[in-house]
Amino acid sequence: MTDTTERARAAAGRTLDDTELRRADLYFRAANYLSVGQIYLLENPLLREPLQPEHIKPRLLGHWGTTPGLNFVYTHLSRQVKQRGTDMMWIVGPGHGGPSAVATSWLDGTYTDTYPEITQDAAGMRKLFRQFSFPGGVPSHVAPETPGSIHEGGELGYSLSHAHGAAFDNPDLVVATVVGDGEAETGPLAGSWTAHRFTDPRRDGTVLPILHLNGYKIAGPTVLARIPESDLVSMLEGFGYRPYIVAGDDVAEMHQTMAATLDRVLDEIAEIKQDARRGGHRPGVRWPMIVLRSPKGWTGPAEVDGQPVENTWRSHQVPLAAVRTDPDHRRELERWLRSYRPEELFDETGAPVPESTGIVPEGERRISANPNANGGLLLKDLVMPDFRDYAVAVPSPGTTRSEATRVLGGFLRDIMHHNPRTFRIVGPDETSSNRLDAVFEETGRAWGMDILPADQDLAPDGRVMEALSEHLCQGWLEGYLLTGRHGLFNSYEAFIHIIDSMFNQHAKWLKVTRHLPWRRPIASLNYLLSSHVWRQDHNGFSHQDPGFIDHVLNKKPELIRIYLPPDANTLLSTADHCLRSRDYVNVVIAGKQPALNYMPMDDAIAHCTRGLGIWEWASTDAGVEPDVVLACAGDIPTVETLAAAEMLREHLPDLRVRVVNVVDLMRLQPAEEHPHGLPHSAYEAVFTADKPVIFAFHGYPWLIHRLTYRRNGHANLHVRGYKEEGTTTTPFDMVMLNDLDRFHLVMDVIERVPGLGVSAAHLRQRMDNERLRCRAHTREYGEDAPDIRDWVWSP
Amino acid sequence: MTDTTERARAAAGRTLDDTELRRADLYFRAANYLSVGQIYLLENPLLREPLQPEHIKPRLLGHWGTTPGLNFVYTHLSRQVKQRGTDMMWIVGPGHGGPSAVATSWLDGTYTDTYPEITQDAAGMRKLFRQFSFPGGVPSHVAPETPGSIHEGGELGYSLSHAHGAAFDNPDLVVATVVGDGEAETGPLAGSWTAHRFTDPRRDGTVLPILHLNGYKIAGPTVLARIPESDLVSMLEGFGYRPYIVAGDDVAEMHQTMAATLDRVLDEIAEIKQDARRGGHRPGVRWPMIVLRSPKGWTGPAEVDGQPVENTWRSHQVPLAAVRTDPDHRRELERWLRSYRPEELFDETGAPVPESTGIVPEGERRISANPNANGGLLLKDLVMPDFRDYAVAVPSPGTTRSEATRVLGGFLRDIMHHNPRTFRIVGPDETSSNRLDAVFEETGRAWGMDILPADQDLAPDGRVMEALSEHLCQGWLEGYLLTGRHGLFNSYEAFIHIIDSMFNQHAKWLKVTRHLPWRRPIASLNYLLSSHVWRQDHNGFSHQDPGFIDHVLNKKPELIRIYLPPDANTLLSTADHCLRSRDYVNVVIAGKQPALNYMPMDDAIAHCTRGLGIWEWASTDAGVEPDVVLACAGDIPTVETLAAAEMLREHLPDLRVRVVNVVDLMRLQPAEEHPHGLPHSAYEAVFTADKPVIFAFHGYPWLIHRLTYRRNGHANLHVRGYKEEGTTTTPFDMVMLNDLDRFHLVMDVIERVPGLGVSAAHLRQRMDNERLRCRAHTREYGEDAPDIRDWVWSP
Repeated sequence: MTDTTERARAAAGRTLDDTELRRADLYFRAANYLSVGQIYLLENPLLREPLQPEHIKPRLLGHWGTTPGLNFVYTHLSRQVKQRGTDMMWIVGPGHGGPSAVATSWLDGTYTDTYPEITQDAAGMRKLFRQFSFPGGVPSHVAPETPGSIHEGGELGYSLSHAHGAAFDNPDLVVATVVGDGEAETGPLAGSWTAHRFTDPRRDGTVLPILHLNGYKIAGPTVLARIPESDLVSMLEGFGYRPYIVAGDDVAEMHQTMAATLDRVLDEIAEIKQDARRGGHRPGVRWPMIVLRSPKGWTGPAEVDGQPVENTWRSHQVPLAAVRTDPDHRRELERWLRSYRPEELFDETGAPVPESTGIVPEGERRISANPNANGGLLLKDLVMPDFRDYAVAVPSPGTTRSEATRVLGGFLRDIMHHNPRTFRIVGPDETSSNRLDAVFEETGRAWGMDILPADQDLAPDGRVMEALSEHLCQGWLEGYLLTGRHGLFNSYEAFIHIIDSMFNQHAKWLKVTRHLPWRRPIASLNYLLSSHVWRQDHNGFSHQDPGFIDHVLNKKPELIRIYLPPDANTLLSTADHCLRSRDYVNVVIAGKQPALNYMPMDDAIAHCTRGLGIWEWASTDAGVEPDVVLACAGDIPTVETLAAAEMLREHLPDLRVRVVNVVDLMRLQPAEEHPHGLPHSAYEAVFTADKPVIFAFHGYPWLIHRLTYRRNGHANLHVRGYKEEGTTTTPFDMVMLNDLDRFHLVMDVIERVPGLGVSAAHLRQRMDNERLRCRAHTREYGEDAPDIRDWVWSP
Repeated sequence: MTDTTERARAAAGRTLDDTELRRADLYFRAANYLSVGQIYLLENPLLREPLQPEHIKPRLLGHWGTTPGLNFVYTHLSRQVKQRGTDMMWIVGPGHGGPSAVATSWLDGTYTDTYPEITQDAAGMRKLFRQFSFPGGVPSHVAPETPGSIHEGGELGYSLSHAHGAAFDNPDLVVATVVGDGEAETGPLAGSWTAHRFTDPRRDGTVLPILHLNGYKIAGPTVLARIPESDLVSMLEGFGYRPYIVAGDDVAEMHQTMAATLDRVLDEIAEIKQDARRGGHRPGVRWPMIVLRSPKGWTGPAEVDGQPVENTWRSHQVPLAAVRTDPDHRRELERWLRSYRPEELFDETGAPVPESTGIVPEGERRISANPNANGGLLLKDLVMPDFRDYAVAVPSPGTTRSEATRVLGGFLRDIMHHNPRTFRIVGPDETSSNRLDAVFEETGRAWGMDILPADQDLAPDGRVMEALSEHLCQGWLEGYLLTGRHGLFNSYEAFIHIIDSMFNQHAKWLKVTRHLPWRRPIASLNYLLSSHVWRQDHNGFSHQDPGFIDHVLNKKPELIRIYLPPDANTLLSTADHCLRSRDYVNVVIAGKQPALNYMPMDDAIAHCTRGLGIWEWASTDAGVEPDVVLACAGDIPTVETLAAAEMLREHLPDLRVRVVNVVDLMRLQPAEEHPHGLPHSAYEAVFTADKPVIFAFHGYPWLIHRLTYRRNGHANLHVRGYKEEGTTTTPFDMVMLNDLDRFHLVMDVIERVPGLGVSAAHLRQRMDNERLRCRAHTREYGEDAPDIRDWVWSP
């Protein structure tokens, strides 16, 4: 163990004078009282009468274990803020810290500011207690409903990444982040200890991790609490931190130790910030952090029914289970509640006496009222250059080529330029691979470590966040958005599934906050998925998965938008729209390879505004009802569809073919299912009610059926898409493997349009032969097969 | 830095004599030659002629950067195995290590043993080169097609967890695991450094991590290669390892250092194992590990076009890009290839000369031929007690209650008993919460750290693997299954999405291996999802997500099975079936709360065998065509459906209602879409072709539409399910929030069956009133509302 740690252990003493110690004690007791009350009490909130069975909730639900430690942390953070005026928010990583965040924000007054019906008196306290873990009430973890929180504690692992996202570009903010020792076992949390190495002490705020070792999960010990302390310290030092350990169970002593340690830690942070401002970039800043070892269920029942409870896993949820029916349990609960001496904490009306909240600051400085935790309050529109200025020239459809994401890169570069403090791009080391390189003309990849001469585009204050961890990227961006800023996540399509569950939680957060008037709208979470399923020429099957759309669509339609712009100009228009939107999750799927352009910018805007449309120039049904509709969504399916339409025009000139391109997938749903959904009449005007529709889709084909099963004419819809037939091969071979190729589309038309006659039957046979010939060529020569290399569509 | 590390650095010397050094050098050179050949050469594999443009692949794809380091590791691991006879497999974490694993297994002869057409001669070498990153060929990462691998390198982060899974219950196995420094940035990898703390040196094999710091990812440096070495060592020591550092770029010196270090490390491992066998459980074993710092693209071009390449990110993929068109590049490639002196490595026929493979062992000892890497070869059937012996008594439907998962626990306990070396349960600290506690009568939770008196069910050799990391659990189980054993993952339903992407990769692995005859079938991956969406009474919205089914269904039907047993006996029958199956992913969703039993065991078996069936005892359509079908899948929807049927029987006695319960969701798909799919005639015999079907479903309602859209009568299907309306509330309130409650189902029937008349209209109104009354009661009294507490279905 190093001398750093020795210093940390020597931190106790008489830091708090009697007044301060009493304030800390009162606040801690009050928060604990309110926490236990939430878990147990239906009536008699102030214990003005002896506790009766009918005062107890019929079903006891909630989590005590982690709560007193959180109350303790909040007490001492508040003291610092009051003394220093620090701009501080906190993030509660431990899953079930709900009782603490609710109790402390009620004590501070923030809860009542937010929910005026939960008054700061006995009636309000009764409501506060009843709503907790009660039908229609608040959950037992920190949630969107909790003031002062940007972090849902239901799914574990994201506290540190959220904290860093909140700290980016907020140089004076301190984000105190309690990491639970259960949470610390998760992969995403373990992978985010490294996050501070991507920050800049001049540009960014400070994350203060407080690793809370209370020793136990639901049913057993935690790893970090049970390994030798020398290993723990060594690990945290290896992570680049200077850990200070605050350990014990004597409340008065712990108040002194915590106060002294936080004094020291916040002094160190101030010094580091000052040094950085004076001295410029210094790689390897060693930030302080705290390890808090306090007993699980601290100050709760030591034993119940002869079994140890405090400081064991048994205090994880409800330590006394039978208080309604067992008088001994009830007596013990009453003793426990009275041990906090509520009569000293609350006045006659039930409001906290001034002394019991004497340790907390006021107004927006209250940690639970920090405006960064309600980012919509701080949100400003992005300063956006005109996306039309980045348009590629399209003299006529299919005559020029662009790499769509590279074109987008120029637009993003200038957005970064105009919004130096409010826009970031995150992605797992793929910004260049996804061809957004232009952004590096404006800023670098964030990198707080050493930079060597051969490195490219690294900068200590860079605003492109690249770490080979989708979890970290997602957590960063969520934290950044939730504190009122804007951003974009670019990723390989297949691997975005890594954050499926994080997306779920963010979407759930948005669903709830949209219905909380005090939570102001935040910028949308924007995904740009490139390197998609159809272009994995050397990576093959493991890199082929277009299913994120399916996953996203399970969330509330009011939140979800999915776009498949077919070319560069439509991508620009889509991106502009998404970056201006609020409270959505936008998924944009676009190619990075050179591909045909179809639409001049004005047409692209009109097409994106409609969301889908008939491409007259590729159709042969002018002025009449078509015989067949060829629909497509996605860049590669669009090429195949256009090529199929071309072949049909050549070989079956009398067939009236309508080509429809879909950018906004949600247009396919009925209007009653999704805000973007087309009314049935509009849908039928495009797709017809009774003609065969051959739909070439970027993703899994059943998704289109899921969106359209209520449409008239659904029975005539035939969808081609990815059906999990992938390998290391060319894009041509990929579409053939999945029957999405032009030949197959032509064959599908011939099979489904009645009465086409003999020439069609011949064409069908010819298409089949052509398919086999092309596959054989591809397999023999790769992309060099002469008629495959040039084998794209041109009108 | 500690003295451990100082010792590690002093490991060089003259460990290898001249013969051994030459063998190491030859093997390393040969593997490097074959790796470069794969990336570049279409013809002229042995460079018998000067290199011409037409010898070069038309499109250059592949990854050189990590490859030479892997070849170096394989060389030295092979030496150890040959000398010691160690049972050793390796796992290649770095994503794009494909060229190395292919090259080394070809040199060893394993590749030719596996794929006889890829002969060990010039013709075979030509094929080996051509197939790499070529249409229809092998990907540039380690893949199912690669002999000696259980690990797909396409998605990063799972090498260490796979390795530990492979090592469980294989006491003499050493799993050498190369962790890439890119991979090391991922959350799942970061979270699996702790895995060794759950192992038992007596019962389990040894994982030897080799952290390969070659410094760069695709476009920038890696974190672990760029932090101060003191931080790195401190971190690894904190993880409980004793790190030995092998660093350098001089090949001959590095051979000596690596040989000496591996000698020492494998000696230490042997000592630890011997000590453990003698001394019993000793918490805190400190395993050795290796940090290998070798340049990215080692032995490749130092500079290209004036830019540094070796030891920079520029060597990640193809260092010389223009060899077909640029004579300078081509000359440099030829120089590079000839620098390995192929004429010394291969004989006239193109086979490796004996000396160049002199360092590798023979037969099954070849690392690439280790049978553990083709687990199906070693797989034995589980010894299964008769699941009928665990049946609960069901005198008549709906008269007794059981906690289904608790009943299953007894069966699992005895499976653990009969299969002490081949069956494990994994789960994130939820085995007790999911009420499988009975297993702890047979074994403990695996725990290699200190055990305190208040701990329960911990054991150093326990076989229930609990870590609060779904990633670790999934990786462990995959590694265990892939090496020929059996297991079960139990998890909360909502959070299984955390491993969506890992599931994807495992399903893709299975899809490929099912079509590789040399890969023998392995035991299925079994998920038991409990604590499901409908029973999150205090956790609320964040814990409510039934979408894993939707995700799983995107994979190949031949692999995917989904079961929703409605009660305890059907769960037993389902579990028995799943645990006996091979090469599937089985998802079983079951309740843990006390719930009604419907079926005596014989009926349960018949019902599960059919997969779905008419419940005559709950229906009123005996012998005639029904007026309406009430279908259900899942425990809670089944209760609501039965209650609705009961109310219809009471209030509309003339209505002929058929109740259908679905256990095996795949029965709903057409037979041509899924092997379990019902033929249309059989489907219509149950669901009718034209009557209204009200389907109460456990998950998102559109899933049922997706499965049935090709069915006649689909237009008459109306599905109720979870539509993302969740909160902290009772199960009763939850079904009401999502319109899945009995009242709604009755109302749906009344709306959809024509001609029911006035009494039905009254009933509809009454149902609506009843709903509102019940919701109000629930919100006021919680579960204690008297008519809600007793409000379950009884016939």
